Amino acid sequence: MASPGSGFWSFRSEDGSGDPENSGTARAWCQVAQKFTGGIGNKLCALLYGEAEKPEESGGSQPPRATSRKAACACNQKPCSCPKADVNYAFLHATDLLPACDGERPTLAFLQDVMDILLQYVVKSFDRSTKVIDFHYPNELLQEYNWELADQPQNLEEILMHCQTTLKYAIKTGHPRYFNQLSTGLDMVGLAADWLTSTANTNMFTYEIAPVFVLLEYVTLKKMREIIGWPGGSGDGIFSPGGAISNMYAMLIARFKMFPEVKEKGMAAVPRLIAFTSEHSHFSLKKGAAALGIGTDSVILIKCDERGKMIPSDLERRILEVKQKGFVPFLVSATAGTTVYGAFDPLLAVADICKKYKIWMHVDAAWGGGLLMSRKHKWKLSGVERANSVTWNPHKMMGVPLQCSALLVREEGLMQSCNQMHASYLFQQDKHYDLSYDTGDKALQCGRHVDVFKLWLMWRAKGTTGFEAHIDKCLELAEYLYNIIKNREGYEMVFDGKPQHTNVCFWYVPPSLRVLDDNEERMSRLSKVAPVIKARMMEYGTTMVSYQPLGDKVNFFRMVISNPAATHQDIDFLIEEIERLGQDL
Amino acid sequence: MASPGSGFWSFRSEDGSGDPENSGTARAWCQVAQKFTGGIGNKLCALLYGEAEKPEESGGSQPPRATSRKAACACNQKPCSCPKADVNYAFLHATDLLPACDGERPTLAFLQDVMDILLQYVVKSFDRSTKVIDFHYPNELLQEYNWELADQPQNLEEILMHCQTTLKYAIKTGHPRYFNQLSTGLDMVGLAADWLTSTANTNMFTYEIAPVFVLLEYVTLKKMREIIGWPGGSGDGIFSPGGAISNMYAMLIARFKMFPEVKEKGMAAVPRLIAFTSEHSHFSLKKGAAALGIGTDSVILIKCDERGKMIPSDLERRILEVKQKGFVPFLVSATAGTTVYGAFDPLLAVADICKKYKIWMHVDAAWGGGLLMSRKHKWKLSGVERANSVTWNPHKMMGVPLQCSALLVREEGLMQSCNQMHASYLFQQDKHYDLSYDTGDKALQCGRHVDVFKLWLMWRAKGTTGFEAHIDKCLELAEYLYNIIKNREGYEMVFDGKPQHTNVCFWYVPPSLRVLDDNEERMSRLSKVAPVIKARMMEYGTTMVSYQPLGDKVNFFRMVISNPAATHQDIDFLIEEIERLGQDL
Repeated sequence: MASPGSGFWSFRSEDGSGDPENSGTARAWCQVAQKFTGGIGNKLCALLYGEAEKPEESGGSQPPRATSRKAACACNQKPCSCPKADVNYAFLHATDLLPACDGERPTLAFLQDVMDILLQYVVKSFDRSTKVIDFHYPNELLQEYNWELADQPQNLEEILMHCQTTLKYAIKTGHPRYFNQLSTGLDMVGLAADWLTSTANTNMFTYEIAPVFVLLEYVTLKKMREIIGWPGGSGDGIFSPGGAISNMYAMLIARFKMFPEVKEKGMAAVPRLIAFTSEHSHFSLKKGAAALGIGTDSVILIKCDERGKMIPSDLERRILEVKQKGFVPFLVSATAGTTVYGAFDPLLAVADICKKYKIWMHVDAAWGGGLLMSRKHKWKLSGVERANSVTWNPHKMMGVPLQCSALLVREEGLMQSCNQMHASYLFQQDKHYDLSYDTGDKALQCGRHVDVFKLWLMWRAKGTTGFEAHIDKCLELAEYLYNIIKNREGYEMVFDGKPQHTNVCFWYVPPSLRVLDDNEERMSRLSKVAPVIKARMMEYGTTMVSYQPLGDKVNFFRMVISNPAATHQDIDFLIEEIERLGQDL
Repeated sequence: MASPGSGFWSFRSEDGSGDPENSGTARAWCQVAQKFTGGIGNKLCALLYGEAEKPEESGGSQPPRATSRKAACACNQKPCSCPKADVNYAFLHATDLLPACDGERPTLAFLQDVMDILLQYVVKSFDRSTKVIDFHYPNELLQEYNWELADQPQNLEEILMHCQTTLKYAIKTGHPRYFNQLSTGLDMVGLAADWLTSTANTNMFTYEIAPVFVLLEYVTLKKMREIIGWPGGSGDGIFSPGGAISNMYAMLIARFKMFPEVKEKGMAAVPRLIAFTSEHSHFSLKKGAAALGIGTDSVILIKCDERGKMIPSDLERRILEVKQKGFVPFLVSATAGTTVYGAFDPLLAVADICKKYKIWMHVDAAWGGGLLMSRKHKWKLSGVERANSVTWNPHKMMGVPLQCSALLVREEGLMQSCNQMHASYLFQQDKHYDLSYDTGDKALQCGRHVDVFKLWLMWRAKGTTGFEAHIDKCLELAEYLYNIIKNREGYEMVFDGKPQHTNVCFWYVPPSLRVLDDNEERMSRLSKVAPVIKARMMEYGTTMVSYQPLGDKVNFFRMVISNPAATHQDIDFLIEEIERLGQDL
């Protein structure tokens, strides 16, 4: 292995005299840096002057650092007391960073430089004069750079360059004109919280190794259940790696509730189980059914009205049909905010049917759950309080960084019974604290990433009212877009009426198609419009919005607004851009 | 909502004159800061002096920033050109940060202050004079602070305090004396990479929104397959949220390979399937079987020798037994590095049996996979190249921040066929780039966190040889511990012989027990020793190591070493600490 050895630091005092104490400028820098940032200034100054770090508890200066314990590292090299170091990363490697002896200084400099790269990216992300994406085709990107992994280490200069290169080609998902997914935006407090989560680098399975995070998960899930409307916020829940897994958990728990023997005996021991969800629901319901050994054929897709809402009478009809065949309906998954139309299934009517036939009612509110934070819009989820389980992804409408998805369950203890395996190496029963905080056995995962802190810290920073303001604004922007295009030449709405969520679905019809009759040829040509405009958007890098076909409707744009940076002007820009890029088609 | 309004910035020049241009000290700070860190110095200085940021591509000074596009925000307030700002966070809220108008300055200051908190934590994490944990019982922590979520926002001063409080009670998982889990340590390059991942805030499902990360996943998985020994690194794979999910994926794919109709028809359409794994294997195999509708009764636990290795003859016997009953063996999951003993199942013998009976061979190398990076130790996984699938968690032995778990599959295309649902809103078939890079449909997850970048960047920084050096060192430390305690008074080894992995399993026998006969009473008293010592370790906060019972063996310590910060002195310390805390028991 390459070992840079000594001499890779270049130290000199500002006046060239080599005497740090005489360097007025360096002293001045420390004073200013301390005032300005408080932290790194202090830390670096202490290092530069060879002073020990002051412990938090004590106000005294230069406390003794040496204790009766063994020193931090065995070597005798002390940080030199020169005032300033020019770090030459070309001579530094990962092995020079902490926990290396004398690794503090290069580590702080390196991490600070990484942070500078990130801060520049953050600022650029919000700058409308930058591109949303600097698009390259996969083969171009593969050829342009050497991404391969090798035996030998690279130096830290190269590592910093990789960070810059990676961000150069990244999608700026916080950019005010990025509308491509349900998760958009970059929240500054959420970002800070995610950095902290990475730094804490722990696992959610036990209180033992994640005490604060486990408590915050407890507090946050309870609050979410209160908002759903379960009495006193009672019930259960967990943060899982995404809405698809949350939905699969709901299916798993619903099955276990009805047939607990399935855990040991498998599906062979139970009758044929049938799940119901709307034809506009998310594909994860079918994925879950395939994985759980239920099979996709046992997921019945209920018809929707023209706005994409499940038709309750069709649900009841299909339940009766299935029962007549001797199969067992075990789950209805209603959707609150469908992926494409943003439709809200009629939860009250679905709840009545589920009650009547004693079927587990799940609400997939991955996308629509955020509206529960808004006094103006939460009526769209009326009936969610009657659900047995709810998927709610704060990483979508609430703008929490990826990933943050919660499954909430009304009955307490069911998740634990369903999934627990009592691993004695993790969940020792003779621990010295309250074991109910060891939540790991509720999940299929063993190790579980800390996803809660981002949401908790954002909630503290914004308050419920802050989320409400964000959501109301996004809904208002969607209505603004709808009002502009509903009667505008060259636009056709995919469904009539004001959007219930921020999804606005429309075709842009280029001038050449406007004269055509509504026939197959026009449909065929129209289906090619959105993909071409989208490809051009990406090549210009000006904006990004999604498109897809759905049922008998050919490719249309699905505009969604969850980005807190978006303004009316950005909506105007989007329309102009679609027309600029599509008028010749 | 509270709105701080204007006037929350307090600007003054260093000499009190109010004239920034005359402030020599501030100028000096900028000069020094630029030299020292390169980045934030430049950025803040540019802001403070009202200069536009210099674009990366251009070397010219003060390029025109205004373009024909719309300006970044509609308001006309310009950053003031004062030299230095004392930020009073008590008057600032999340709404003052980007994307707010004029949000750049408070955002940079806020994120920098968060970073300072994190850097202090990083430095402390490696300092042996700090506690590994400042332990409090759950009810204490809940009472000591108000963690509740409220309607109204908190100011940024409070948010920064929450960050400090959260870290105050966090476990320092990077601390040189933290040995509690298989995942320990805090790698500086990995941490930097995770910060970048958070900042990029995107999703792995399509190339469209994660171009670089998708390519890096491709490159990295291929490299891992090469190391496993599959010709040319061919095959398939994915990063999943933890080893338990990776193991479940293996089970899912193995079942699909044998009975593809299970996807549509469910378990009702197939015969009873049986999986085999050792009695020392990870509990996730049973969790997976329960979830997939196979049932835990259909997971047969094969006997292990006294070192914790699966006994091949028992495997073959149980396979024959099952076949005789008319059931279908579909999966053998061998373990390379068991959780407690660190045992490696005899993969070559298992491979022969799997071949003979045409059973999918999975290797759960979540913990042991790292040894493949070491020329000295990889022989312990001989035969892994014959597996059909391998779980390998770089977040364990290789020290990548949590989470980073890979499932590698020898047959290409199987994951896609098994899990795909062709969601047309994500995986549009008329996109303008090579769709093979849209990997999202291989997974059960829809949104998928970017877990690869940490590993890729660490690999570039360390090289394969760097991982090898780390792994060899950890194994050497484990041997050092073993050699010290194997003949030391007061210690009994749980199994004989040199550990194959870094797991060293032992009882500490306090003096009062050493005189007792080896009977039930002694066992009963011995079983209480490790929990008490562990509780005391946590209360003193000096070190952390795990314990558990296993089979007929009462609570014993399981020491594992994956922490790059650990040294021989830390091993010595651990022994002294166990004796100090346990001698009175």
